[in-house]
Amino acid sequence: MLKMDAVQKQLLQEVAELHDIPEGAYNLRANGESVGRNSTANIEIVSKTDVSGIDIKIKSGTKNESVHIPVVLSESGLKETVYNDFYVGDDCDVLIVAGCGIDNCGNQDSEHDGVHRFFVGKNSKVRYVEKHYGSGDGTGKRVLNPVTEVYMEENSTVDMEMVQIKGVDSTDRKTIAELKAGAKLNVRERLMTHGDQQALSTYQVSLNGDGSAADVVSRSVARDNSYQKLDLCVNGNAACTGHTECDSIIMDNGRILAVPSLEANSVDAALVHEAAIGKIAGEQLIKLMTLGLTEAEAEEQIINGFLK
Amino acid sequence: MLKMDAVQKQLLQEVAELHDIPEGAYNLRANGESVGRNSTANIEIVSKTDVSGIDIKIKSGTKNESVHIPVVLSESGLKETVYNDFYVGDDCDVLIVAGCGIDNCGNQDSEHDGVHRFFVGKNSKVRYVEKHYGSGDGTGKRVLNPVTEVYMEENSTVDMEMVQIKGVDSTDRKTIAELKAGAKLNVRERLMTHGDQQALSTYQVSLNGDGSAADVVSRSVARDNSYQKLDLCVNGNAACTGHTECDSIIMDNGRILAVPSLEANSVDAALVHEAAIGKIAGEQLIKLMTLGLTEAEAEEQIINGFLK
Repeated sequence: MLKMDAVQKQLLQEVAELHDIPEGAYNLRANGESVGRNSTANIEIVSKTDVSGIDIKIKSGTKNESVHIPVVLSESGLKETVYNDFYVGDDCDVLIVAGCGIDNCGNQDSEHDGVHRFFVGKNSKVRYVEKHYGSGDGTGKRVLNPVTEVYMEENSTVDMEMVQIKGVDSTDRKTIAELKAGAKLNVRERLMTHGDQQALSTYQVSLNGDGSAADVVSRSVARDNSYQKLDLCVNGNAACTGHTECDSIIMDNGRILAVPSLEANSVDAALVHEAAIGKIAGEQLIKLMTLGLTEAEAEEQIINGFLK
Repeated sequence: MLKMDAVQKQLLQEVAELHDIPEGAYNLRANGESVGRNSTANIEIVSKTDVSGIDIKIKSGTKNESVHIPVVLSESGLKETVYNDFYVGDDCDVLIVAGCGIDNCGNQDSEHDGVHRFFVGKNSKVRYVEKHYGSGDGTGKRVLNPVTEVYMEENSTVDMEMVQIKGVDSTDRKTIAELKAGAKLNVRERLMTHGDQQALSTYQVSLNGDGSAADVVSRSVARDNSYQKLDLCVNGNAACTGHTECDSIIMDNGRILAVPSLEANSVDAALVHEAAIGKIAGEQLIKLMTLGLTEAEAEEQIINGFLK
């Protein structure tokens, strides 16, 4: 059993869908300390000695295994920066689940800044899921500033699911990816902000090898007085294909600035971008309301579908 | 007859499709001097007294009239900044043709920076055509840095055709537009760069009134070692609709950076953007080549169609 209290367990469920200790390799961090760790025959987790954080070493040929490294903070006023490095060998097929939940009932800001670096070997396939969630009715802010760096060797594939569910007051998300020949990156970002929250999200994807491809799709909802800035940049430096898409719903006094950019530095780069910002279409609401939902319920249903 | 030499007349034809004096109001500027001017009953052109440039005053109710204000430079080493202000009354329907041609056979840079401001009255309709062109085999550069500012009153319409045909070594184009309720702005930009040319083009469109709408479409081709940066920004500050589109073809070692941005500051703003950068599709070339064209002719035909 986990050495965690009820609040921490609730956070763990939100960010990693875990009720208890997961199968496979894991490292659980609560209020700045490791509260459980498991290495397996193929996946070794070791603490860094110079800075706070861990190295996750995945042997070449590791298939159908998973690593969970969720973080929960339930103490007000805690600030930490953690460096986690993933060394994925060649020919792997693994699932990595990270994520951070902050419950802040106090009046001091709580902040977790995770710096995750992925070194993905040739022909390896990584699915990475990262969820961020905040709760608690204190006046202290819940702040999450994740940095994600992905370095992809030939013919590797990384599928990333980046989700900020709710309750995060301030976030500055930075994601960098560098792809060698034949590498494929797929990103699905889901962001929701409410209240006076602010979210910045920056992607810098460099398609450096022939046959590399990136598909970055961001869907976001800005409610109440919240503000979002989305910055998706794709550099095509070889015979590559890049697609980015920003779809955003604004509600109430929410504001969104979308600044995608495409940079073609090779004549063989093919880059495409789409973006759309608007409110929920009136006819969609009316349709659901004629089925018996209130306006609020109809909005909720549309947003849930949009962010699924 | 015009007091212009053969080179100047050739430039005039390229930028304004004029063989001789146009009908209606006009001001022709050659090598920094006015070489012809005509005001009409409804359109008055007067020189500014503080800076170089003219005021063009168009009476309310003026319909189906035109103003031509082309500029030609055929002297090497000439640099000028010209301020032209257009005061368009209410309920007008006018055509305004500007444009600048530079022929530089010398070894000194020639530069024309035109600052054009448009104050467009209620319910008025303006069609604005601006063409830029360079020629001459000197080592001196042909530089054009146009600034265009458009202030649109209620229910006015401005259709802008912004074309840089060829031969411009360096350009930094800035366009600002502010729209009140019901105003509509349509921009069609066509840019071609070749050799070592560099082109920057920035649009900043603010949709400030309910029912305002902007449609900004940029098509560009970057050949040889040329570089383009396209920056299309639309701010939705009311119940408005904005659409921007960047379509670019790269050839040889051409490079293009497209940075469109959408900023929704009102829940009733609906903003959409598309961008695509790539080379000419192989199948298009092959199709035209099977019809008997060489590869170069096929490319030329595709580009001409694309920039039409």
